[in-house]
Amino acid sequence: MYFETFSQMKKQLGQLDKWLEAAAGYAKAKSFDPNVYLSSRLAPDQFPFVKQVQIACDAAKLGASRLTGKAAPSNPDTEQTLEELRARVQSTIAYLDTFTGKDFEGAASRVITNPRWEGKVMSGADNFQEHIIPNFYFHLTHAYALLRHNGVNLGKMDYLGTLSLRAP
Amino acid sequence: MYFETFSQMKKQLGQLDKWLEAAAGYAKAKSFDPNVYLSSRLAPDQFPFVKQVQIACDAAKLGASRLTGKAAPSNPDTEQTLEELRARVQSTIAYLDTFTGKDFEGAASRVITNPRWEGKVMSGADNFQEHIIPNFYFHLTHAYALLRHNGVNLGKMDYLGTLSLRAP
Repeated sequence: MYFETFSQMKKQLGQLDKWLEAAAGYAKAKSFDPNVYLSSRLAPDQFPFVKQVQIACDAAKLGASRLTGKAAPSNPDTEQTLEELRARVQSTIAYLDTFTGKDFEGAASRVITNPRWEGKVMSGADNFQEHIIPNFYFHLTHAYALLRHNGVNLGKMDYLGTLSLRAP
Repeated sequence: MYFETFSQMKKQLGQLDKWLEAAAGYAKAKSFDPNVYLSSRLAPDQFPFVKQVQIACDAAKLGASRLTGKAAPSNPDTEQTLEELRARVQSTIAYLDTFTGKDFEGAASRVITNPRWEGKVMSGADNFQEHIIPNFYFHLTHAYALLRHNGVNLGKMDYLGTLSLRAP
């Protein structure tokens, strides 16, 4: 299930990349600087769009890394344009592409640490359910909501992507 | 994993109930009608707050029902006040409380149907990953974002709730 969930996150990041492309198209059609999205916020004390995208990427990247012990590439959060954000998303997808189901063997019982937890730890299973999944979707959805709030023409199927429907 | 994920959704709905309580408190402190939140939107062609909460509840309720074959209570979407929305959330939590891990045996291979899919079907496993989880967090996060956008004092830990930290 771990591998399947990260595969789904990879799919969702592919959708995010399409939203960024749509956002660039909308900026072009309305003749505004596409990079103004990056500082857009839904509340003055919430992270801006650029950070929502960066954290969504890191939730997937660092989640997979911590549950498997596989080193993650470094991303110094220096993106300043929509194009650079697309490259960040695409590099995260490429990293997730390196995983197989076998990498996640033993993930549930891994001991996960975090400097913020004051010496305490979480099991991989708890971390996956209580932090990685909710945190990934939180920032992904904020990125979507911010683009919708700014007028980009997206709908639910742009969020979900193509579903694995089959004949009965 | 299915049971654990729905247990996590139950936890998230408990957090949502606390956000609604905080929203009522903020309305009282600022002397405005708490029910104005219900029609709040982030974009004119997005669902309002009331619908975001209703769909988050239904994503969990109907998801669990379809994956297990266990009948779900009917909710006609008639909520008109913040208090009624809290009751809706609490009733969804109570429904999720009736499940055990055993209920989800065979969930992965269940055949899921939907009138919108023009006769096609999804496996329970695909439906869980590609629709139930992303859809639940999409509407849950929109509810959170709408309250933040309206000034309610919430932070990331209100979203995540208490984490299962333990001594190393």
